[in-house]
Amino acid sequence: MLAITILGNNSAIPAFNRHPTAQVVQTAENSFLIDCGEGTQMQMDRYKIRRSKISHIFISHLHGDHYFGLIGLLTSMGLLGRKSELHLYGPEQLKVILDLQLEVADAHLPYDFHFHALQTEGVIVDEPKIIVECFKVKHRVECWGFLFREQKNLRKIEPDQVKKYNIPTSFYENLHKGDDFISERNELIKNELLTSAVSPPKTYAYCADTIYNEQLIDKVKQVDLLYHEATYLHVLQKKASERFHSTCKEAATIAQKAGVKKLLIGHFSSMYETLEEFKIEASAVFENTELAIEGCTYLV
Amino acid sequence: MLAITILGNNSAIPAFNRHPTAQVVQTAENSFLIDCGEGTQMQMDRYKIRRSKISHIFISHLHGDHYFGLIGLLTSMGLLGRKSELHLYGPEQLKVILDLQLEVADAHLPYDFHFHALQTEGVIVDEPKIIVECFKVKHRVECWGFLFREQKNLRKIEPDQVKKYNIPTSFYENLHKGDDFISERNELIKNELLTSAVSPPKTYAYCADTIYNEQLIDKVKQVDLLYHEATYLHVLQKKASERFHSTCKEAATIAQKAGVKKLLIGHFSSMYETLEEFKIEASAVFENTELAIEGCTYLV
Repeated sequence: MLAITILGNNSAIPAFNRHPTAQVVQTAENSFLIDCGEGTQMQMDRYKIRRSKISHIFISHLHGDHYFGLIGLLTSMGLLGRKSELHLYGPEQLKVILDLQLEVADAHLPYDFHFHALQTEGVIVDEPKIIVECFKVKHRVECWGFLFREQKNLRKIEPDQVKKYNIPTSFYENLHKGDDFISERNELIKNELLTSAVSPPKTYAYCADTIYNEQLIDKVKQVDLLYHEATYLHVLQKKASERFHSTCKEAATIAQKAGVKKLLIGHFSSMYETLEEFKIEASAVFENTELAIEGCTYLV
Repeated sequence: MLAITILGNNSAIPAFNRHPTAQVVQTAENSFLIDCGEGTQMQMDRYKIRRSKISHIFISHLHGDHYFGLIGLLTSMGLLGRKSELHLYGPEQLKVILDLQLEVADAHLPYDFHFHALQTEGVIVDEPKIIVECFKVKHRVECWGFLFREQKNLRKIEPDQVKKYNIPTSFYENLHKGDDFISERNELIKNELLTSAVSPPKTYAYCADTIYNEQLIDKVKQVDLLYHEATYLHVLQKKASERFHSTCKEAATIAQKAGVKKLLIGHFSSMYETLEEFKIEASAVFENTELAIEGCTYLV
């Protein structure tokens, strides 16, 4: 299971008590932070996300509402005595900025810090239970989306059946992976007779800031949950595309064309005091849409 | 009159709903921001300080808890359509960081922005009603304090008296400044006969982050309000001085030796959940002490 907690759902200017972009993706074993707008560490305090549990941080792009809170979080982690590894993924220049900020403060991060510049699409994290891939999206500056895929769940061995067919324990590993068994007498015993399926691996795609872009459809095809920005209502489509942002209707169109299970929209412009219209506009195109609300956790 | 509003009273790590350092100094004509820790723009929203009114920003030093909110505030000002002048004062390298952050975002500040590197002690702002001076304090990195002095108030002309002594209106300007009048018959008419005093100009000194340093005493002598950091209680004096910070008792000692009217202490360590002890410790040395509390405005 994946749990996505929204820490900031607004676009550039904090307003109406909405904060710039940040969200946490948690599994039983991992806590990942995606983007880190100003005030993210205070939002983590508010919503009981422990800084110490975050092992990987992904920064989609270097517009301030997606990373101005990062240096504060990184230095606080140090002041709080962190020793464990931290992996940071983002555009190359992010490292230059962080290094400069540490240098002028005569400071360093007193833990095991690894920066990984995003350069090509593909797998960037491969943990026992989860894989993270990055993919390019279209924004005014270099910008990346992230796809979280649970590792394929192993098939469950049925104890009575393996006894009945006399399967040696040395073959159990293969059974977990779905292999059929061939006995000494050359009989084929189908894996389905010996094991049962478990729930399919869950997927979550985060599309960061992006103009309406049908090349995304393939990248997020049939994910369980798609986060897509929806900065404006569709009446402002021209403004949206000029700024390399999407409208609510466009986000829903991508969700619908990609056949995803559920859509989560966010990155709302600070011109909107309330968000009801976003839900109505998106749902008309793609019914299973939810608004990203700060403090709420969406389970996949 | 000067009004000082506290937006952040904590040291490095935000905790117990206290925020990193920021405060606003307002006169009838001006709004100045001193330091700008992460989340300052949200604190301005909360306490109804309008971003657009700020004309000058002073950054004491480049430890993150004093400036990580600056780039977010500056870019928000642009997004909100600011056109008016903004003057920023701080250590030279601050400009390098800001330029880099704007460059990677392919952004610029669409208003009249002036950066002034702090280099020597003395007057940095000279407005009709107020003067701001900077002075060096002792911290782990280059660090500056700021002294706000109302311009000397002009003496008030007494209408009945100037009529009685037949003073020409062309001399009124001199009377305001305190000059005596010499008549055509060479009679000296003392200024005190013709004008009355108005309230003396008010002063506020902000000492930023500093180790206990008696050289400060001369610089803040007899100010109406002294803000002095008090990161720790005195039982942690060793820790304080190792980190180039002051204890509560040390802040009060500076206030007492400088003969200031009132002391305001802040920059509390995040190890303290409550602040009562600070008030008790400081008041024992210097009675007229107040805690800097977020959202509170202290009038001078």
